[in-house]
Amino acid sequence: MDVVASSSQPSTVPPQRPGEDALTSLISLLQGDLEACNHTIVARMDSPVTLIPQLAAHIVAAGGKRLRPLLTLACARMCGYQGQRHVKLAACVEFIHTATLLHDDVVDESLLRRGMASANAVFGNQASVLVGDFLFARAFQLMVEDGSLTVLGILSRAAATIAEGEVLQLVTQNDLSTPEARYLDVITGKTAALFTAACEVGAVVADRPQSDASALAEFGLNLGIAFQLVDDALDYTADQAVLGKTVGDDFREGKITLPVLLAYQAANTADQGFWRRTIEANEQNESDLDRALDLIARSNAIGLTLDRARGFAAKAKGALDPFPETTLRRALLEVTDYTVNRVR
Amino acid sequence: MDVVASSSQPSTVPPQRPGEDALTSLISLLQGDLEACNHTIVARMDSPVTLIPQLAAHIVAAGGKRLRPLLTLACARMCGYQGQRHVKLAACVEFIHTATLLHDDVVDESLLRRGMASANAVFGNQASVLVGDFLFARAFQLMVEDGSLTVLGILSRAAATIAEGEVLQLVTQNDLSTPEARYLDVITGKTAALFTAACEVGAVVADRPQSDASALAEFGLNLGIAFQLVDDALDYTADQAVLGKTVGDDFREGKITLPVLLAYQAANTADQGFWRRTIEANEQNESDLDRALDLIARSNAIGLTLDRARGFAAKAKGALDPFPETTLRRALLEVTDYTVNRVR
Repeated sequence: MDVVASSSQPSTVPPQRPGEDALTSLISLLQGDLEACNHTIVARMDSPVTLIPQLAAHIVAAGGKRLRPLLTLACARMCGYQGQRHVKLAACVEFIHTATLLHDDVVDESLLRRGMASANAVFGNQASVLVGDFLFARAFQLMVEDGSLTVLGILSRAAATIAEGEVLQLVTQNDLSTPEARYLDVITGKTAALFTAACEVGAVVADRPQSDASALAEFGLNLGIAFQLVDDALDYTADQAVLGKTVGDDFREGKITLPVLLAYQAANTADQGFWRRTIEANEQNESDLDRALDLIARSNAIGLTLDRARGFAAKAKGALDPFPETTLRRALLEVTDYTVNRVR
Repeated sequence: MDVVASSSQPSTVPPQRPGEDALTSLISLLQGDLEACNHTIVARMDSPVTLIPQLAAHIVAAGGKRLRPLLTLACARMCGYQGQRHVKLAACVEFIHTATLLHDDVVDESLLRRGMASANAVFGNQASVLVGDFLFARAFQLMVEDGSLTVLGILSRAAATIAEGEVLQLVTQNDLSTPEARYLDVITGKTAALFTAACEVGAVVADRPQSDASALAEFGLNLGIAFQLVDDALDYTADQAVLGKTVGDDFREGKITLPVLLAYQAANTADQGFWRRTIEANEQNESDLDRALDLIARSNAIGLTLDRARGFAAKAKGALDPFPETTLRRALLEVTDYTVNRVR
C-alpha cells in the first residue's frame, strides 16, 4: 500500500487536473478497497425477502459514483490505517446514502435517478420507503458488528441531521423569502452531514487523535456544501445525460435553491412576479422553464452560486493542511476541485 | 420498589382479571418509570426544525397504549433492575415503533390512526417519511448514549426484521394463495420482532444471564404474534371507537390476514369468486364489506383466528415460568390474557 501517509512522498506536487480524471484517479488508488466495499454492499443488502435485494440492486448497483464511501476509504488510508474495518464502514455510509435517496425520490416524486427510472417509479413508493428502512437498519447492524460506539455516534447523529435537513427543505419549499443562510442550513443537513461523517469515520477507524478527526470532518462538511451548491447549479445548466436526472426537476418542484434565490433577488418587478407564480404558487406552463433558465443566466446566478461553491471548496482543501503530502491527499484535493468544476 | 423479583412474594396468585384492567394494573405498577419514559420521549423528539416535534407529537403524544415501552420497563424491573437506563431504552423502543407507524400509514395510505386523523393525512406523506427517519435515527442516538453494543445489536436486528416483514406483507398483498406460515412470517416480522426486542432488552439492561434474555425474547415473540392475530381479527369485528382505526381497512387494502385466508379456504365456489374479486382484483363496491363480514362470521374465521392467538398467548405465558412469582410477572401474564381477550 503506497498511498498511506508517509514523509518520503515527493514535496513537489504536479499541477492539478480538474475534471473527471480526479475521481478516476482516486478510484484507482483505492481499487482493492472499493472492490471489497462493493462486495460487502452486495453481500449485506441480501435478504430472504427477495424484493429487497432486487430493489436495492436497482439503485445501489446502478453505478452511482460511490463518492461518500470513497471518502471513508480515502480518509482512513490517508490516516495510515492498514486494516479492513473501513471497508464495512464505507458500506454503511453507502447504505445510509441509498436509504435517503430512496426516501427522497418518494418525497420528490422523482421519476429519474442517475439517468435511469427511479426505484419508486419501477417498484412503487411503498417498497421504496420500506427498503430504505431496511438499508438504514442494516447499516446500523454493520456498525454494531464493527463494534465502535464512536463510529455509531457519528453516523447516528449524521442520520438525524440528514432527516432534519430534509424536513427543513420541505418547510422552505416554494418560499422565495428563504434567507440564503437557511438554504445553507438545508444543504448542510441533507448533504454535507453525511460527507462530514464519512470523512470523520476514516480518522476514527485509524485511531488518530481528535484533531485529525475534526480536520477531516471540516473537510467533509465544506466539500459536501460545495458539492450540493454545484448540484443545484447543474439543475439549471446541465443536459440530462450529464446530470443523470430530469433537467429542471428543482424548478418544477418549486425547490428553493441558491440559483433561484439569487435570480429572484436580482429580478425586476415583472420577473419577480414570474418567480412568485412559478415557484411560490407552483403554477407552471411549458415555456416557463426556458424563461427561468434565461432569467438565471441574465442574473449570473450560476456564476455567483459557483463562486460560493469555490469558497467552500477552498475551505475544504485548507482543512487537509495538517496532513502530510501523500498521493491520497493530493487525490482528495483534486476531487474537491473536480466537485466544483463539473459545470461546463 | 416493591415490584422487583423477590422470593418473599406470596405464592398464591389471585385469579386473573382479563380485560383492560390488566393494562391499567401494569401501568400503575410502573407509574414512575412510565412518566420518566414519556418525559424522555417528549424531550428527545425535539429539534430546531419545529415541524419535527409538531408531527411527532401528533402521533407520539396522541395516547397510544405505550405497550412496547411498558414491556421493556416491566421486563427490566421483573429482572431486578434498580437503575434508570431502561427508561431511555424504552423510549428508543417507542421511537422505533412510532417511526414504523409513520411509514406504515404512508404505505397503507391510512387516514386514521388511533381514532384520529393520521399524520400523513394532516402533514402529508413527505413529512411523515422524513420524521419517521428522524425518530429512527434519534432512537439509535439514544442507544449510543446508553452505550451497550448488545442492546444496539438487538434493536438494529429488530429494525431490519420489521422492514423485511413489511416488505413481505407488500409482496403477499392481494394474494389469496398465501400459506398461513407465510402470513405468520409477515406478522412475526412486522409486529412480533419489536415485542421480542423490547422484552429481551429488559434482561440485558438488568445484566441477567443469556437464558433469561432468551426466555423474555420468547415471551415477547409469542405475545407479539398473538397481539397481531387479534388485531387482524378486530379489523373484521370491532366498531371504529374501539378499534381506533377505520373498520374494514385491511379489507379495502386487500391485505392478507388470517381471517380472510380462513374464510377463503372455507368458501364455496361462488364465495371464493367474491374473495378473488374483492381481495385479489381489489374491485370493491359499497356492500362488499358487509358480505365479507358475513362470510367471515359464517366460516368461524374469527373464532379460529382467536384460537391461534390463544395458543401463542399460552406459549408466551409459559416462557415466564423461569421467573419468580412477583407482582410484575403476574401483571405481564394478565396483559397477555388481555391481549387475546380484546375481541368481544
